[in-house]
Amino acid sequence: MALLVQKFGGTSVGDPDRIREVADHVVRCRKRGDQVVLVVSAMGKETDDLLRLADQVSTTKPGREMDMLITGGERKACALVSMALNDRGIDSDSFTGSQAGFITDTIHRNAKILDVRPGRIQASLDEGRVPVVGGSQGVSADRDVTFFGRGGSDTTAVALAHALGADACELYTDVPGVFTTDPRVVSEARKMDQISFDELLEMTATGCPKPAMRSVELARTFGVRLHVRSAFSWVPGTWVTEEENMESAIISAVTHDTSEAKMTVSGVSDRPGVAAQLFRALADADVNVDMIVQNVSAKGSTDISFTLPHEQTPTATATVEAIVEEIGATGSITDDEIARVSLIGAGMQTNPGVAATMFETLSTAGINIEMISTSAIRISCVVREAEAESAVSVLHGAFELHKPAAERSDL
Amino acid sequence: MALLVQKFGGTSVGDPDRIREVADHVVRCRKRGDQVVLVVSAMGKETDDLLRLADQVSTTKPGREMDMLITGGERKACALVSMALNDRGIDSDSFTGSQAGFITDTIHRNAKILDVRPGRIQASLDEGRVPVVGGSQGVSADRDVTFFGRGGSDTTAVALAHALGADACELYTDVPGVFTTDPRVVSEARKMDQISFDELLEMTATGCPKPAMRSVELARTFGVRLHVRSAFSWVPGTWVTEEENMESAIISAVTHDTSEAKMTVSGVSDRPGVAAQLFRALADADVNVDMIVQNVSAKGSTDISFTLPHEQTPTATATVEAIVEEIGATGSITDDEIARVSLIGAGMQTNPGVAATMFETLSTAGINIEMISTSAIRISCVVREAEAESAVSVLHGAFELHKPAAERSDL
Repeated sequence: MALLVQKFGGTSVGDPDRIREVADHVVRCRKRGDQVVLVVSAMGKETDDLLRLADQVSTTKPGREMDMLITGGERKACALVSMALNDRGIDSDSFTGSQAGFITDTIHRNAKILDVRPGRIQASLDEGRVPVVGGSQGVSADRDVTFFGRGGSDTTAVALAHALGADACELYTDVPGVFTTDPRVVSEARKMDQISFDELLEMTATGCPKPAMRSVELARTFGVRLHVRSAFSWVPGTWVTEEENMESAIISAVTHDTSEAKMTVSGVSDRPGVAAQLFRALADADVNVDMIVQNVSAKGSTDISFTLPHEQTPTATATVEAIVEEIGATGSITDDEIARVSLIGAGMQTNPGVAATMFETLSTAGINIEMISTSAIRISCVVREAEAESAVSVLHGAFELHKPAAERSDL
Repeated sequence: MALLVQKFGGTSVGDPDRIREVADHVVRCRKRGDQVVLVVSAMGKETDDLLRLADQVSTTKPGREMDMLITGGERKACALVSMALNDRGIDSDSFTGSQAGFITDTIHRNAKILDVRPGRIQASLDEGRVPVVGGSQGVSADRDVTFFGRGGSDTTAVALAHALGADACELYTDVPGVFTTDPRVVSEARKMDQISFDELLEMTATGCPKPAMRSVELARTFGVRLHVRSAFSWVPGTWVTEEENMESAIISAVTHDTSEAKMTVSGVSDRPGVAAQLFRALADADVNVDMIVQNVSAKGSTDISFTLPHEQTPTATATVEAIVEEIGATGSITDDEIARVSLIGAGMQTNPGVAATMFETLSTAGINIEMISTSAIRISCVVREAEAESAVSVLHGAFELHKPAAERSDL
């Protein structure tokens, strides 16, 4: 008998039929003998609907009130799921984040968990019941309702799994696991049986849609075993662990991300402190700078390029224009039509040929590389947005990711 | 400077435009120098939508989960109203029933208030802010969310006005006050400036749609001054008080109610205890019996008629059929096409001519009276449902309710 924390996302509880399917799923888990705690997100597009309502009544949208409003989505879902379980003869209680013991700081819209006191959840389990917890929410020291931000239900599930000493935290999604690349782009994309925390973190940071990065970091910190799997299938999904990757793959996955733009500041003075001045100004303006590349200096000046979220380009442009003279730059240009293509793999640090193969593959396909950035387990290239999918496709083929690791050619 | 608790119903916060109008209203109250606490219902048809969702996922619908689900409606509304206020430069905080200090019993879907501890509301007021409270909800001794039932926001407002020692509790509705009868039926219906608690209670019990009876009882118990008025007008509405009615009207209003059916049990043995047996059985089956009339006994048996909500007729029929032999009855029949027409007035107890005038008026209009029931300040007649509106109309005219009390003819 295992104790499992199972998180169901918005799609999995998107309508009454789906909610009843979740309840059927729990019936099967209980028949197998498992103890189950559920964590649920808001139904379908409910969070978007609530945000739209807020936009219609307010431009200031105070954080405290936004959190009171938005957490209602998860609360509604947990009550409905609990009802559906009771209907199947399973005693169940719903819990808000506050009732479930999630104590947070007072930073609204992006609250951090300070402590989890799962007394009521444990008591519910001890009575043989199934607790259903509203995700992404807690209560602050000021006794106000707080929201963890979008994707926060994953964080709720991981933190609760840790607090309860659960055997695993299962993140149910609408896909069967983590893939070697986006299956909508490359039909040969292969579901991985296992992936390391580091690899998954690099993937979520480079365009892989799930699970939420913060929850993966938390799971790694606390050693919570994560299982990313499909809501309505018994087929195992992808396990995320610290354990050595049994597949021993050099490359695990290819990702792409079109959410960023590129900004280039030209003719920057090549003297110490200039880059610091530029990125301090951008940080003060809350611009999330990602990749940074500085070209080789020529004649005492240089170009600095960086990527940033599309929606932050107006802020970044204004910020840079304000200090353009101070840093001795000649101007800045932004480019919205870029994509980042990344190769992820814990084995690449001991295989220097990986980068060369990646660049050759893109070159052969006629795809120009505009920026390059690397980490120990990732190589990212900025390419034209229009060429992103074909870049993913040729890389997936070149590294034979459609095959299990053991069957791949040596690099 | 007055301290006012203002309750806004579902229609008044039904969409973003209405919510902004409520905020504008509060701006005007504050300019006038008043301190304001708002209590809000769920937006428009939201409670119905939530009930429908519950129906779609569950037949058992446990009370605890239903309350968790339904109270989300008021919670959403209070966050949105608070945001709209902040947008107008008014510092405001939203509060759930629990945060507002409403401690209740553990009877879900129909929780009773045990105590109100308005510490956070008072603190918010003391800081010059406007608290906005989600209506009809509290927290039980078991730390579970509880719901007061439909119309419970009026109760929240009255209880809070009492706990805060407010100068008045204003119930904002979509009509300008309490009328001498339904203005949709009789165009000459007149808004009353004042009405007594007893009269209003009789009106709400006989088809007047608002305010909720429980809140009126609570206001009478605690001596809270109630003001029923229109949300978007400075014209005073109707004051509800214990004070002597300045208008000194004999008759205040005519109401009608088509929500009930009539059931007649025929040939009941005319011996002691039979009626008790019948109504105990109905009470045990949770049938809400209203008017009861027993005809004069003839030949050792009698007919007993009573009214009950339409939707309870199947239950009542089954209950009566089960004891028909025991009580020596010959059978029962139900009649769904009845209406109750009531005349309300604190002055009628000292004016014996009122009943006679009522019966004559109906008779002259060719309207047959099927049942009669009276209280100290009310006379109700059951008539054919199809004749209800014309009964209201002729009675309203006969008692000259379209005129202020001082201008009416003597009865």
